[in-house]
Amino acid sequence: MATIKDIAHRLGVATSTVSKGLNGANDISEELRQQVLDTAIEMGYTTKKMKTNQHKKLCILIENMKYEEKGDFGYAVILGFKQMAIRDQWEVDVVSCNASMQKNQRYDSFMLSNGYSGALLVGFTLQDDWILQCKTTGYPTILFDNYIEKNPHVAYVGTDSSEGIRDAIDYLNKKGHKKIGFLNGTPNSMISSERHDVFEYAIKDLNLPYDPELNIYGFYSKECGRLYLPTFIEKNITAIICGSDEIALGIIEALKEQDLSVPTDMSVIGFDDLPIAKKAIPPLTSIRQERKELGKCAYFALNNLLRKVPISKTLIRSRLIKRDSVAKL
Amino acid sequence: MATIKDIAHRLGVATSTVSKGLNGANDISEELRQQVLDTAIEMGYTTKKMKTNQHKKLCILIENMKYEEKGDFGYAVILGFKQMAIRDQWEVDVVSCNASMQKNQRYDSFMLSNGYSGALLVGFTLQDDWILQCKTTGYPTILFDNYIEKNPHVAYVGTDSSEGIRDAIDYLNKKGHKKIGFLNGTPNSMISSERHDVFEYAIKDLNLPYDPELNIYGFYSKECGRLYLPTFIEKNITAIICGSDEIALGIIEALKEQDLSVPTDMSVIGFDDLPIAKKAIPPLTSIRQERKELGKCAYFALNNLLRKVPISKTLIRSRLIKRDSVAKL
Repeated sequence: MATIKDIAHRLGVATSTVSKGLNGANDISEELRQQVLDTAIEMGYTTKKMKTNQHKKLCILIENMKYEEKGDFGYAVILGFKQMAIRDQWEVDVVSCNASMQKNQRYDSFMLSNGYSGALLVGFTLQDDWILQCKTTGYPTILFDNYIEKNPHVAYVGTDSSEGIRDAIDYLNKKGHKKIGFLNGTPNSMISSERHDVFEYAIKDLNLPYDPELNIYGFYSKECGRLYLPTFIEKNITAIICGSDEIALGIIEALKEQDLSVPTDMSVIGFDDLPIAKKAIPPLTSIRQERKELGKCAYFALNNLLRKVPISKTLIRSRLIKRDSVAKL
Repeated sequence: MATIKDIAHRLGVATSTVSKGLNGANDISEELRQQVLDTAIEMGYTTKKMKTNQHKKLCILIENMKYEEKGDFGYAVILGFKQMAIRDQWEVDVVSCNASMQKNQRYDSFMLSNGYSGALLVGFTLQDDWILQCKTTGYPTILFDNYIEKNPHVAYVGTDSSEGIRDAIDYLNKKGHKKIGFLNGTPNSMISSERHDVFEYAIKDLNLPYDPELNIYGFYSKECGRLYLPTFIEKNITAIICGSDEIALGIIEALKEQDLSVPTDMSVIGFDDLPIAKKAIPPLTSIRQERKELGKCAYFALNNLLRKVPISKTLIRSRLIKRDSVAKL
């Protein structure tokens, strides 16, 4: 576990300053106090003062998403959520979830038997049992990237993909690309179908040629890039927007195997801007999702539901991070 | 100004309990403490302890919307916002705004010269100078019912009108209404154009006959109802959804003048569920906007922007409040 010294070192301040921050002393600025608290949580440091109230528990349920390593999508989401929740003295459990767990116990019964006051569900699809049960749950519940109609106890938090995809298409268009393809993730997800529609809308909106066969549903892995690359090459497109950075890396690898290079022979844009995007060769242009901020925002939304403010959705902005995987034609 | 006794009376608790709540004592429940605080703010009571930090100021800018009286739309929005902001020791100014004020000073310069850290803008249209200037502002700004693309310092907060209108149409359909009209508010507002599109979509989605001449843009006052009633009567429709409770009251009045009655001769649904809806004759069925919760939500969103979480939009759920202005056919 990190020590006060480690935190002081990371922030470049004296250990006494860190102590003051952790103990809520008045003679350091609020901004610095927040920074100390955030860093302490990030480094896994806790004091008695920061101890949570054992009767107040929230949980983050994760299915189908990596979160253990720093570079994983879920890691920063959890971190952001915890950094906010600890200020209100919530204890937060992270629970990995699968289909059989959902078959064996209903969502409400899981929440009740574990004493959770509310939950954030990440990585689920609309077909998952617990998401279906969210139509009627009375537990304040935040769904990452999923939306349930009419239940005032459930809200959707995610990135404004629509703005992100339009930004990417605008950018490619300005670089001279007219034939652009979209290699999406799995079809049975709300977010993929939204992105699918936005891609069509944005292409048509710029008066670029729209071909439905270039607006493809795939799946979230490198293999997907490899599988669909031939379709894009046959159709002579010059740029591919991908539903994730992994898919984009798959495209780049498959191109290399054919002695084609990025961006000379094909421009590629990823989605998420995970740490792998920056390290790619060439460094990948990507539509960034602010993962830690999504976690914070999920906590804010949950806090609203707990106070009976019936939030239905909260979106945060994406950002196009420009690197070297797009050429000017 | 209200006294501690007044607050105690309103809440039905002892004055000593109110004192404890105001002074942050530990021996009353957190829930009761919050209730005391909320009521104190609602009744205009402040103590030294509740005094805000004079260097931390936010403002609520209001244009074209009533907010002085309890029944006004803006009143509860401001109340909810203040109830949340005071917890974080913000001082909140409410500033009434008009076109010449916007002509004389730029938005950023107004914010700077008054020392505001952020603002909530209510009642503006997309054509207002200060809204246009929000495209580039660096001040954390929440727009009620308006949306600005791409600027991470600006977010949109509002009611999920789409769900509200679909609920109303579903309800009318189940009551046997097939010919339904929509009398919207002014056309140069983001929210009216969204409602316009949703009305068309929802009518078609239920396979009801869609007539664009029954999806009418009007303006937000009683006169609007009077003006457009003949169009609806000519087309033999049986139910009208209105863009505000005022418009709905205008329709009811104009029907009465023709010796027609609600709901026997025409079913009418309002929007907002202001206090006037309940008092109408007959009591008006209305799509409720949770005004105080919208104010709270606006503060939460602004708080996010102040912490650099780039929220783009936050919507809260509407609720169809069923009263006596809809008949079963």
